Amino acid sequence: MARVEVDVVIKTEILDPQGKAILGALGRAGHSGVTEVRQGKHFELVVDDDISDADLEGIAEHFLANPVIETWTVRRVPESGL
Amino acid sequence: MARVEVDVVIKTEILDPQGKAILGALGRAGHSGVTEVRQGKHFELVVDDDISDADLEGIAEHFLANPVIETWTVRRVPESGL
Repeated sequence: MARVEVDVVIKTEILDPQGKAILGALGRAGHSGVTEVRQGKHFELVVDDDISDADLEGIAEHFLANPVIETWTVRRVPESGL
Repeated sequence: MARVEVDVVIKTEILDPQGKAILGALGRAGHSGVTEVRQGKHFELVVDDDISDADLEGIAEHFLANPVIETWTVRRVPESGL
C-alpha cells in the first residue's frame, strides 16, 4: 500500500470567490500579513504499490479534477500509518 | 512574499461520502489499484516573509478548518513564481 496526495486548484486566470471571501475575513480580523488565498481540493488516496504514475495522472485528470478550469499535482508520500 | 499551503482533511473517524463516491466510480471504471479516497480542502496562501508559525497555525484553525471535524497541516513551500 502506498499513499498519494492530489491537490487540485483553480487555474490562476479564473476567479476564486471562496479564496477572496477568506482573504477578506482575514483582513477584517487584522491578519494583514496574508495577501492572497486560493482554495482548492485535496485528495488522499491509498493505492497499490505497483500503480503507475500514468495511472495516477489519469485518475487525477478524469476523476478528481476538471481540466477545463483546474490544474493538479500528484505527489507520492512516504507511508506513515494513514 | 512567501508561499504557504494548508491541507484540511476530515478526521478519519468521520465518514467522507465524497471520497466514497469517487472510490466507487474508480472501481466501476476498473481502477482497482485504489483502495481508499478521502477528499479535503487545499489552500494556497501568499504571506509576508515574517509571518510566524503561530500566526499561520491560528489562521488555519480559525479561518480554514473546522477543528471539530477536521485536521490540517501547514506547509511553507519554496517560492517558484505563484
